[in-house]
Amino acid sequence: MEVDRSMVRRGILFVISGPSGVGKGTIKEALLKKFPDIKLSISATTRSRREGEIDGRDYFFLSKQEFNSKLQNNEFLEYASVYSNMYGTPKQYVIDNIITGNDVLLEIDIQGAQKVKGQMPEGVFIFIQPPSIEVLAERINVRGKDSPESIQTRMAASQEEMAMVVHYDYVIMNDKLDEALNKVEAIITAERCRVKNNIKR
Amino acid sequence: MEVDRSMVRRGILFVISGPSGVGKGTIKEALLKKFPDIKLSISATTRSRREGEIDGRDYFFLSKQEFNSKLQNNEFLEYASVYSNMYGTPKQYVIDNIITGNDVLLEIDIQGAQKVKGQMPEGVFIFIQPPSIEVLAERINVRGKDSPESIQTRMAASQEEMAMVVHYDYVIMNDKLDEALNKVEAIITAERCRVKNNIKR
Repeated sequence: MEVDRSMVRRGILFVISGPSGVGKGTIKEALLKKFPDIKLSISATTRSRREGEIDGRDYFFLSKQEFNSKLQNNEFLEYASVYSNMYGTPKQYVIDNIITGNDVLLEIDIQGAQKVKGQMPEGVFIFIQPPSIEVLAERINVRGKDSPESIQTRMAASQEEMAMVVHYDYVIMNDKLDEALNKVEAIITAERCRVKNNIKR
Repeated sequence: MEVDRSMVRRGILFVISGPSGVGKGTIKEALLKKFPDIKLSISATTRSRREGEIDGRDYFFLSKQEFNSKLQNNEFLEYASVYSNMYGTPKQYVIDNIITGNDVLLEIDIQGAQKVKGQMPEGVFIFIQPPSIEVLAERINVRGKDSPESIQTRMAASQEEMAMVVHYDYVIMNDKLDEALNKVEAIITAERCRVKNNIKR
């Protein structure tokens, strides 16, 4: 059976971004439960797998050789080196889903979001903000997985990154998680009602 | 005590519009309950008061002389003659609220919405759509307050008006009221999270 593509609306790319430790991952997980029809964009990385992470769900864990091979084939929407590890967003998966009318969720750091915006400016870019720099510091410390030097570096970077909010469509302060979550859910529901997102191709 | 106006965000004008009989009024009432901080823009009209309507709540009921006087003083954001009655949206109330940071809700027909958009293009324009022309006809008949001729005229106008959706920001089909309501609420919550609506003046 042939699909009449003229009747298929394009999917929407939702980008959840913000400084490290702000709670992007928790929000992402909750969104996937609330909207089971949204496809999660899974990043590729060369960093080592952390406890609880599953290959193909949290990341595609690649060797440096594998990563570089895909890089040379222009298979990433964006890529970056963070703490000497490589991260990248596989391009084809995002584009295929959007063309067939599936919405895609991408959780990514601020630098990555800017690069994705350069390639897909029609995406919906959501900035998750900590209530304050102090709260951000606490949250990063609570993790207890990083060295004090690493935390210091990340805090300094975060302060610069906070100013990047002006390049986003939406900003949500993650003070109380359930309130922040309601707002992200509202954004997804609202964007699906946009006239420009309901024009049949 | 002086207000530091540099710290006040501007309010948002939400315009709920759509063909006659689509359920705009019901949605408006529900929104005001859900968001008690939103100010309702009340129209002025020369038409006679219907049962249950209250002056200053549903409309400002004016004589033709009073209406024309305000018209000459340029006190309306838009105005129109419908079935030989005059309708107008008082301008100052909307502008005052937006400047002081209050969101304003305006329920208005499609022609009125287009005129408001000409003066306030930064508003958020939401089009409420009937599930089908047949359902719209049923709903108009259910009211039982209008003559068959009036219904016919309104149906024909509605079909033309439906094409105006392309000039709106959002479109919501009012098939099931609670679902339509959830979507309008999501739009209000989402728009309040827009970066451009959170920049302090």
